[in-house]
Amino acid sequence: MRKVCVIGIGETRMGRLPDRSLRDLIDEAGHKAIADAGIEKSEIGALYVGNFNASYLCGQGHMGALASEVLGLGSIPTVRTEGACASGSLAFRFGTMAIAAGFYDIVMVGGVEKMTHQPTETVTTGIASAMDYEWEAMQGFTFPGSFAMIANRYFHEYRDVKHEMGLCAYNAHQNAMLNPDAQMPKDVPLAKILGADLIASPLSLFDCSLVTDGAAFVVLAAADVAERVNGAHRVIDIIGTGHAGDALTLAAKPNITSFAASKAAAAQAYGQAGLGPDDIDFAEVHDCFTITQIINTEDLGFFPPGKGGDAVADGVTARDGKKPINVSGGLKAKGHPIGATGISQIYEVVTQLRGDAGARQLKKADIGLSQNLGGTAATCVINIFRGR
Amino acid sequence: MRKVCVIGIGETRMGRLPDRSLRDLIDEAGHKAIADAGIEKSEIGALYVGNFNASYLCGQGHMGALASEVLGLGSIPTVRTEGACASGSLAFRFGTMAIAAGFYDIVMVGGVEKMTHQPTETVTTGIASAMDYEWEAMQGFTFPGSFAMIANRYFHEYRDVKHEMGLCAYNAHQNAMLNPDAQMPKDVPLAKILGADLIASPLSLFDCSLVTDGAAFVVLAAADVAERVNGAHRVIDIIGTGHAGDALTLAAKPNITSFAASKAAAAQAYGQAGLGPDDIDFAEVHDCFTITQIINTEDLGFFPPGKGGDAVADGVTARDGKKPINVSGGLKAKGHPIGATGISQIYEVVTQLRGDAGARQLKKADIGLSQNLGGTAATCVINIFRGR
Repeated sequence: MRKVCVIGIGETRMGRLPDRSLRDLIDEAGHKAIADAGIEKSEIGALYVGNFNASYLCGQGHMGALASEVLGLGSIPTVRTEGACASGSLAFRFGTMAIAAGFYDIVMVGGVEKMTHQPTETVTTGIASAMDYEWEAMQGFTFPGSFAMIANRYFHEYRDVKHEMGLCAYNAHQNAMLNPDAQMPKDVPLAKILGADLIASPLSLFDCSLVTDGAAFVVLAAADVAERVNGAHRVIDIIGTGHAGDALTLAAKPNITSFAASKAAAAQAYGQAGLGPDDIDFAEVHDCFTITQIINTEDLGFFPPGKGGDAVADGVTARDGKKPINVSGGLKAKGHPIGATGISQIYEVVTQLRGDAGARQLKKADIGLSQNLGGTAATCVINIFRGR
Repeated sequence: MRKVCVIGIGETRMGRLPDRSLRDLIDEAGHKAIADAGIEKSEIGALYVGNFNASYLCGQGHMGALASEVLGLGSIPTVRTEGACASGSLAFRFGTMAIAAGFYDIVMVGGVEKMTHQPTETVTTGIASAMDYEWEAMQGFTFPGSFAMIANRYFHEYRDVKHEMGLCAYNAHQNAMLNPDAQMPKDVPLAKILGADLIASPLSLFDCSLVTDGAAFVVLAAADVAERVNGAHRVIDIIGTGHAGDALTLAAKPNITSFAASKAAAAQAYGQAGLGPDDIDFAEVHDCFTITQIINTEDLGFFPPGKGGDAVADGVTARDGKKPINVSGGLKAKGHPIGATGISQIYEVVTQLRGDAGARQLKKADIGLSQNLGGTAATCVINIFRGR
């Protein structure tokens, strides 16, 4: 298999963007990525686009073809990938695979979602299609309910980490204040976070990620091509990639305080990279809810099972800690434009590895990781990147 | 790149199946394919599932994870691929790519759609998400309208082939009578077809494909693995594969009587196979409308531009003709369960190449082709298969 690199990145501001259409969002993020890569459009061999549910929320399917038309890419092959909140990372995964196999030398991958124009009830219904409709959503189950059950079980098996979950949210908002693309760059006091209204016990308002419009795109290239088309210092190597799944329904999982999909994907990515959790300088992990962030950092092997909360309390996951998590602001405060989220995580990792993160630049950023979950951890994609 | 083979196939009956859920359809077709391949579930490395719009029609996204749970495949990676009516073929394309690259030895791919439980208006809206929402669907444009414009332009550039379009429908229904999985195995007289009510001039009722529930699955394996897991006579080689796109909107296409996506995908597939159109014994092509079948057979190089109608009139495309087209009954009479259609086409090609097609078995079936379009020809996947 050929080695694959990231040679260009672009994203929109994330947020409630009532004046931006799907076309607008794709146009901005896609053209930024192409310009950043310094390539001609004619060099792009294929386009893969993650989108979760514009079919329901916007009446728009066939997102690959829409994006290709918007970006003026002609007759190249396109596909929309969907795996709930991991849809964007799946586009990245398949782009990587297509180059590794030798089908194309340069592939563009991206993600887009437009959600905020719909009333809350419609958004909730749309998001619930990421779980099992017949056995879960139709019975009134929602994602806050699902992750609340997970949090309660975690509290039962280990200890109550409600305070540490609040600290996750606090860190996320602090980090977002340094990210010009973030949806909620607000200095939210910890007391306000901990005292917020309950959504689904024990999750309260600030434990939940955001409803967001946004897009992010990345240009991938085979390593030999990357040297030619871009300055070597801009090129970021993909040194490990993993993709795994799990049963869709919560009831079918024997363990809900650790996610089988994450552990399997992590084993693949670490194995391919020849690295372990201690070698990762920083990570963007899937914080759809604060409890999810804590569990993810345990599944990635950063902290032992049940100890993810301690790491947050000890400041390890803060921007100036030993293992900074979600320095972008994460899904919690940068925003969660579902289909774009995985690509936006990669945007942050690449930005940090290039040393381009400005006020939120980490001091040590040689190796970074992105972890993106779909549904109740029924899909997971993990990537490990190294700067040059 | 490694060579890839089909080692197992399975499909449901196609039709109006009010008592079958998405789970039921996946369960039947998926387990048939696994049993046909003669493999253990634990040997399957990944699962890719084409689905067009269950998000809107059934409230169900994340189809890869649902299918994996239904089939009991554990923690393997899954994805849903979507490219409108080509969604199933895209799953097949990515499965082929993943094996060719060496990521997995055995991959299961499939497609599923459930449509007939919804009222016609909802189905029409759901299908229209395969075109551009803002610039086409929201203005009242529909697919019968789109392909009617294409037919009118074809009549203008070449000649009126309304009669030959009727013959396409006639052949489709005749073929479907020999296919136990077909939705409309009816002996429809040509006079009835030609005299049917107009839907969008010049398309009348029998020029339009069906609204269908159904599923189809295929098991793919690397060539070296295929020898081990199955009897060699059951193995079908994928000798060429192509995937290309085009602008989403009709207005953005300089030519609408030939599809750029089809021509580009065909060039790739023929090139990889080292074959030309004359080497293909039979084909399953995308007859969402009868005019589409005629154009497709021209774009595939079977007949010169403007001469596809003559070939139909001369009996060339009939089951006993020199180039049998859609011997399964096609989208027109076997049915069009959108996300499953591309896989169901492959099911037919493989069945013919194995010599297992019973009453509709073709005498010469050494090399077969499948061609699957998405939207107004904004996505095309073409595969060429050879029996052993």
